Amino acid sequence: MASSSNQMKVVTGEFGFVLQDVPHFNDYIPDLPTYPNPLRSNPAYSVVKQYFVDMDDSVPEKIVVHKDTPRGIHFRRAGPRERVYFESDDVHACIVTCGGLCPGLNTVIREIVHSLDYMYGVNKVLGIEGGYRGFYSKNTICLTPKVVNDIHKRGGTILGTSRGGHDTMKIVDSIQDRGINQALLLDQVYVIGGDGTLKGAAVIYEEIRKRGLKVAVAGIPKTIDNDIPVIDRSFGFDTAVEEAQRAINAAHVEAASAENGIGVVKLMGRYSGFIAMYATLASRDVDCCLIPESHFYLEGKGGLFEYIDKKLKENGHMVIVMAEGAAQELLAAKNEQDASGNKLLQDVGLWLSQKIKEHFLKPNKIPITLKYIDPTYMIRAIPGNAADNVYCTLLAQSAVHGAMAGFTGFTSGLVNGRHTCVPFNRIIEKQNKVVITDRMWARLLSSTNQPSFLGPKCMDEARKEGETPNTDTTTNEIKST
Amino acid sequence: MASSSNQMKVVTGEFGFVLQDVPHFNDYIPDLPTYPNPLRSNPAYSVVKQYFVDMDDSVPEKIVVHKDTPRGIHFRRAGPRERVYFESDDVHACIVTCGGLCPGLNTVIREIVHSLDYMYGVNKVLGIEGGYRGFYSKNTICLTPKVVNDIHKRGGTILGTSRGGHDTMKIVDSIQDRGINQALLLDQVYVIGGDGTLKGAAVIYEEIRKRGLKVAVAGIPKTIDNDIPVIDRSFGFDTAVEEAQRAINAAHVEAASAENGIGVVKLMGRYSGFIAMYATLASRDVDCCLIPESHFYLEGKGGLFEYIDKKLKENGHMVIVMAEGAAQELLAAKNEQDASGNKLLQDVGLWLSQKIKEHFLKPNKIPITLKYIDPTYMIRAIPGNAADNVYCTLLAQSAVHGAMAGFTGFTSGLVNGRHTCVPFNRIIEKQNKVVITDRMWARLLSSTNQPSFLGPKCMDEARKEGETPNTDTTTNEIKST
Amino acid sequence: MASSSNQMKVVTGEFGFVLQDVPHFNDYIPDLPTYPNPLRSNPAYSVVKQYFVDMDDSVPEKIVVHKDTPRGIHFRRAGPRERVYFESDDVHACIVTCGGLCPGLNTVIREIVHSLDYMYGVNKVLGIEGGYRGFYSKNTICLTPKVVNDIHKRGGTILGTSRGGHDTMKIVDSIQDRGINQALLLDQVYVIGGDGTLKGAAVIYEEIRKRGLKVAVAGIPKTIDNDIPVIDRSFGFDTAVEEAQRAINAAHVEAASAENGIGVVKLMGRYSGFIAMYATLASRDVDCCLIPESHFYLEGKGGLFEYIDKKLKENGHMVIVMAEGAAQELLAAKNEQDASGNKLLQDVGLWLSQKIKEHFLKPNKIPITLKYIDPTYMIRAIPGNAADNVYCTLLAQSAVHGAMAGFTGFTSGLVNGRHTCVPFNRIIEKQNKVVITDRMWARLLSSTNQPSFLGPKCMDEARKEGETPNTDTTTNEIKST
Amino acid sequence: MASSSNQMKVVTGEFGFVLQDVPHFNDYIPDLPTYPNPLRSNPAYSVVKQYFVDMDDSVPEKIVVHKDTPRGIHFRRAGPRERVYFESDDVHACIVTCGGLCPGLNTVIREIVHSLDYMYGVNKVLGIEGGYRGFYSKNTICLTPKVVNDIHKRGGTILGTSRGGHDTMKIVDSIQDRGINQALLLDQVYVIGGDGTLKGAAVIYEEIRKRGLKVAVAGIPKTIDNDIPVIDRSFGFDTAVEEAQRAINAAHVEAASAENGIGVVKLMGRYSGFIAMYATLASRDVDCCLIPESHFYLEGKGGLFEYIDKKLKENGHMVIVMAEGAAQELLAAKNEQDASGNKLLQDVGLWLSQKIKEHFLKPNKIPITLKYIDPTYMIRAIPGNAADNVYCTLLAQSAVHGAMAGFTGFTSGLVNGRHTCVPFNRIIEKQNKVVITDRMWARLLSSTNQPSFLGPKCMDEARKEGETPNTDTTTNEIKST
Repeated sequence: MASSSNQMKVVTGEFGFVLQDVPHFNDYIPDLPTYPNPLRSNPAYSVVKQYFVDMDDSVPEKIVVHKDTPRGIHFRRAGPRERVYFESDDVHACIVTCGGLCPGLNTVIREIVHSLDYMYGVNKVLGIEGGYRGFYSKNTICLTPKVVNDIHKRGGTILGTSRGGHDTMKIVDSIQDRGINQALLLDQVYVIGGDGTLKGAAVIYEEIRKRGLKVAVAGIPKTIDNDIPVIDRSFGFDTAVEEAQRAINAAHVEAASAENGIGVVKLMGRYSGFIAMYATLASRDVDCCLIPESHFYLEGKGGLFEYIDKKLKENGHMVIVMAEGAAQELLAAKNEQDASGNKLLQDVGLWLSQKIKEHFLKPNKIPITLKYIDPTYMIRAIPGNAADNVYCTLLAQSAVHGAMAGFTGFTSGLVNGRHTCVPFNRIIEKQNKVVITDRMWARLLSSTNQPSFLGPKCMDEARKEGETPNTDTTTNEIKST
Repeated sequence: MASSSNQMKVVTGEFGFVLQDVPHFNDYIPDLPTYPNPLRSNPAYSVVKQYFVDMDDSVPEKIVVHKDTPRGIHFRRAGPRERVYFESDDVHACIVTCGGLCPGLNTVIREIVHSLDYMYGVNKVLGIEGGYRGFYSKNTICLTPKVVNDIHKRGGTILGTSRGGHDTMKIVDSIQDRGINQALLLDQVYVIGGDGTLKGAAVIYEEIRKRGLKVAVAGIPKTIDNDIPVIDRSFGFDTAVEEAQRAINAAHVEAASAENGIGVVKLMGRYSGFIAMYATLASRDVDCCLIPESHFYLEGKGGLFEYIDKKLKENGHMVIVMAEGAAQELLAAKNEQDASGNKLLQDVGLWLSQKIKEHFLKPNKIPITLKYIDPTYMIRAIPGNAADNVYCTLLAQSAVHGAMAGFTGFTSGLVNGRHTCVPFNRIIEKQNKVVITDRMWARLLSSTNQPSFLGPKCMDEARKEGETPNTDTTTNEIKST
Repeated sequence: MASSSNQMKVVTGEFGFVLQDVPHFNDYIPDLPTYPNPLRSNPAYSVVKQYFVDMDDSVPEKIVVHKDTPRGIHFRRAGPRERVYFESDDVHACIVTCGGLCPGLNTVIREIVHSLDYMYGVNKVLGIEGGYRGFYSKNTICLTPKVVNDIHKRGGTILGTSRGGHDTMKIVDSIQDRGINQALLLDQVYVIGGDGTLKGAAVIYEEIRKRGLKVAVAGIPKTIDNDIPVIDRSFGFDTAVEEAQRAINAAHVEAASAENGIGVVKLMGRYSGFIAMYATLASRDVDCCLIPESHFYLEGKGGLFEYIDKKLKENGHMVIVMAEGAAQELLAAKNEQDASGNKLLQDVGLWLSQKIKEHFLKPNKIPITLKYIDPTYMIRAIPGNAADNVYCTLLAQSAVHGAMAGFTGFTSGLVNGRHTCVPFNRIIEKQNKVVITDRMWARLLSSTNQPSFLGPKCMDEARKEGETPNTDTTTNEIKST
Repeated sequence: MASSSNQMKVVTGEFGFVLQDVPHFNDYIPDLPTYPNPLRSNPAYSVVKQYFVDMDDSVPEKIVVHKDTPRGIHFRRAGPRERVYFESDDVHACIVTCGGLCPGLNTVIREIVHSLDYMYGVNKVLGIEGGYRGFYSKNTICLTPKVVNDIHKRGGTILGTSRGGHDTMKIVDSIQDRGINQALLLDQVYVIGGDGTLKGAAVIYEEIRKRGLKVAVAGIPKTIDNDIPVIDRSFGFDTAVEEAQRAINAAHVEAASAENGIGVVKLMGRYSGFIAMYATLASRDVDCCLIPESHFYLEGKGGLFEYIDKKLKENGHMVIVMAEGAAQELLAAKNEQDASGNKLLQDVGLWLSQKIKEHFLKPNKIPITLKYIDPTYMIRAIPGNAADNVYCTLLAQSAVHGAMAGFTGFTSGLVNGRHTCVPFNRIIEKQNKVVITDRMWARLLSSTNQPSFLGPKCMDEARKEGETPNTDTTTNEIKST
């Protein structure tokens, strides 16, 4: 596919070495001048002998290997290069944040601004307000190091955000010409967003390339759900798992203080259950964790109700954690049966709570007390914790180093603990999911003692899905720490 | 060296592949029977197709590579094996914690007990009280899953801890025979501790091997300072950096509310400045970070006083973060001059505070207000955060899987995001330190704008130390996230 | 009414002095022996000269006075008395918790047990499990100082709780005879609960009095909503207001990060809006606070929608805090129209969110982003903060001192900063409500700049309700701090 | 004394009624015009019928009374009056903060500015920077509602603070004429500070009165130690006690994890031990609380060392909390013996830690592990909690209402839960102290089981000090809640 070939340069070597490299201005604009990296004269860096990254540095995607494993796919290591493709005084950069809130967003904004200014002397940075549509609605903020200095201590994004609003042509027009008054091309576009946003960024990059513009498009993947593939974990995830503990603790206290108390906590995770899984593993007060990847059923042998009956009999209370995307297949079925289209059923936590209550209203059932907690917005809106703040700092710096060095159409990303540049198409090609035939999920099952919700047939299928080369089964362990 | 060859088995392969493997009972006891792993019949694991780790799985130590880089050193991947070397009913295990407190200690204890019981059916686990000396003072606690169930929510260690008390012969005697009443050999010894403790564990392992005992010695490296080599980071480090933010915030508020206010915060870090460095990077309110690895001087051009003068003139206040091991070379000089041996000078934070005050009492100096904060014990004593809780869980499980599979003389450890078994000698051979010619320290210098405290001569030396192969300079980035 | 005269002894004095005293065993059992208070020999108290409370000590209900104001209603001061009506070794006490969770519940339990044991040497204390019905379902826990030692650090109630289950005769039978095996009368019954629970306790006291039993019934008022009359504030209220800040902060961040963002937070407050009011005053990020006492309307001039329109135009975002009991009159109307009885409408937060969304879907309205947060269970389930812990301690001690001294049919309660004994009938006669013609509500209106939602007619009525003697208008200020 | 008669107007009534009123412009400036209160037209207040405080409203100082107790001392109730003595457009106000940091300082500043602007339309408010000396060093900030809008979420004081710098004449000169450029009299001076600061404010008021200036001097008492007399508690105290729990928890964990572990926590309290006492009562993990009011001794029977020996034998660990002003009498003795004047001995926590260590180095003593924690600056520097934020709001409003109404030479203050105006001389005449012959201290002794440290002779003296009328012994209970 043309698009794909534009989005990734594949370089191969001996013993199966493959480098999935990111695009560069040189790929479509000939004879660009280069300049020495201003960091050369930065006192902070002068002491570091090998500060600049070797052009050949790469990081393998898979690192659980055997003696005779071929070397496999690698990504370009992120970091500053000896030569840059922009003169600092001329650079106009812009930053846009899209999609839902995520702890650390403001830190990323702050650090892009600080990196551009303090490292590269770039001091013309615009904040695009309110997501993609801010490009053509002309709402911008002038971002200086002083303006962004304390924003990492606040949740949310100072730029505002929105979903959708992506009109490629209008955005690239806007990038190409910021209007009569401003009369200037934007040279670097930093896009912070999730799956959909980065798909948009990829299209913007394609259009820019088609027009032959020397404009770098760099992404910083943002997804509180941790559902971005390739990278170890997305920023804000650590903070979210930490904050989720409050809700789980509350559910546990509520459940334990009532007779046959059931606490239900809904956590983020539209298509992947990482937050639910890690929050469960960290808490240890959870009796059942329900995620989109592991289909479950309510009635009958091996079903959820049977397990709840058992737990209440044993302990007198229980705690259920569920990802917001869990049980969608059950909800869908329900929707078909009931044409009235009750919107509230879309909240899977309310739906499950209702189902459980109905179950225990049946004859011969014990009376229960169920408390439902949805901490979603209380989690999303907090500032990043220390670990996420440092992580966001490095992601922002990697994006800036890459753009200054002439790379485009890439996101920064942590791969096996190393900061790399990942081509857009690898980031957007699929979603990262909990592999339920993997050991991490087994650890969870072992920790909660919940049923696997798999009949013999499902078991076979699940195993088949998991039938990938042995090193693959470590995927989630990679994400874990 | 005999000791070293006992502590590591080196296997080589093509293209420079080296496996630094850990010892195994088979190395010194012939013809041991093996048993199928009880996890086979655990419902939680039954769904996972490739649950058991392939005997050939290994993880490379260095992963920033070029196309033609030799494959280098690898470690054995941790995880459950198909066959185990113990019958669950017969196993007597014990756990000991040594040295200073660290967030997550109780989680490690809890998860060793839970893993042994829930995964392997081992239910005879002793807690050795008060560190190594608990082995022969016969103070033990019976550790059941119920006893340890909630301890991960508490700071400290329920086993108690102490420094020293290591008498190899008495400990191994005690392991070999737990006294007339108990009349039993201990089969698995889990040692949670730092540098010195693990050196002790290595000697215990040697003695056990010499006596030909089938006793597994497994370590879980514990150091809040993150100064253990090879591994990505030590447990509790994340929590410590997070909690240190409180002290830095307080110092910042105190400094900013006074005219020429100076806030000084002393953080942990006897020989390495990781906590100070990461806390500084996460906070962004710090103007100067002093660590053991980067020698500094007070007086004269490029010295600390000059920088303080400058910062106060510019901003009216400043915040200094220092590791407890910083400036020891200056303190030593001081001690030589002043033979009275004032113990309080050993607190480098009090010493620096005093020095700064004296500096500003000199003629023509402005009056300052200095506030000194030492949050050490308030940081050490908190429970692990969510990330550390999950991390501790996996470290504990890896140690248990390894011991059950007959490995000994090893620690569990995270290497490039993968859980591995690392031979003792690699863990204790040196300390992990901040490499000040590396990019992470450059990032810090850039973030604080503090001087490098290096004259031209020092610069040369610093660079020389840093002259290691290119991939080496990523060392600290590895540790970072 | 006989009941009332049983529940309160009125003593009058000169200049309008009225003491609303609490019942005493002496009122219905003649010639009871008394004993010296064991506290006499307690070393902790031996230093205090006037440790024992004078029998005549009383505390006025109203203390904003004029030179010539009559002295008014007083309550008996709480505290230890020189003589007690029980021999410590003989006393069997029990504790029961009823109704919803509230921060500090476990502290009250702990301190009753500790006070009985350490102060009075009473060591037979039973915990009744699961609320009132635990009396006859015979589920009890033996409460020792050791058992309760750390429970104040946990949320919830270790005794469990439930609503309802009040069967006076069965409960008093159970108190009178704890069954063949136990063969013992309970002597002191401590009831921790809200409005309904204390009404139940009042009936239990009446029945016990009717049977002529020497059983003390003491209440500790529990209501997170602060809707108990007479007393300054209820325990747990401070903690709840503090914790509510998290939700308000999150709502503010979510609203401010979206274009025309609206954050809606529902807080506790079934019949009174104290938590919403104080949380709003403490936060200052709230643009509108809706409480049960202040009826509002959506449409038209001076209505909520008009105000939202205005705020969004001015600031681009807004935060609404509402008590769960607000707008019930609007919901009721709705329910009449729609006979299907959609239960979900009972959640006023969901209802209001839906209404606002519908409003902005009308033609010519701007698109909004609304986030709804319900932190109720996350607030209820946390442990008490330091202020509430100390407060709970004194409430528990006052109840124990009172019961030991032969008083019955009373609750302990803080009146104008003094610990007192309040007769049941004063505590249950009505609910404490925010007086919207009072200055505290005016302060709130001034702080948020929200409309008063009062048309001219309502204004008159509101004023009429407020037409009480001048000193009365201070009622809420009393509660505030 | 003339000064005193200037500082308080005493009004008497029947049955022992005494009003200790505050000064007013009318006392020394005849025929001042008055204006209707602008709040009349404020929509927020229009609904409140009796919004304005009756001129005769007063609040009694003592409220534990008998039927025949004389009415005693009263204070003027705070609040808005019908007529004010300033025209809003003409008013120039200023705010100064002095002394140490205290949670809530920024809230007080914020609310004075907001009250002046939103309630009274006064929009010329200056912030005096860096304490009293800012008056004549001419460093000022223009304080608008926008500038102060978010400051209550930050610790410290945005105005900066300092100790000393009080030069009455220069300050009053500065107040009288703010220099050629500004050419304006300041009309209202708001002073936020402790004992010393308010003494300064009293002298400033006297000088202003002597010069016949129509300048209101209003104080808001600030002392984290809660050592201001008359008022219920000082702002920030609640927050400080809450935050102190962290340090006590850490000390408890450290002590319990070591063999014979001793945790020592030093808390604020130069002359009074309220923070230490309440933090101890709230925590319940403390074994000994040492405060300035209760002299103790180390050696011998009934001494501290004997108690430590006992506790370590019983529990294996212990926690000691001490106020910074405790043991000063012991330190003084030490200083006489050792003329070298070792400054470090002034830190009583370090001194006690050293003493305890020395004690256990004696022959036949067990080895101990002692950890010393000084959280002072980490407590002082945090923002106020919700309760303190609301409290600070009302204190600020009371000060503004008072100044606008022509009162001067007063502080706002909470008395028995009511906001009042207290004359300076009552606030500065003495310090509030823990009365160790009172029940609150008895509660503490009972809670920790520590010795009273009183020999028979001391006992007598202590009792004699406590020999005040019975109602007096409730003093500290008043402060408690």
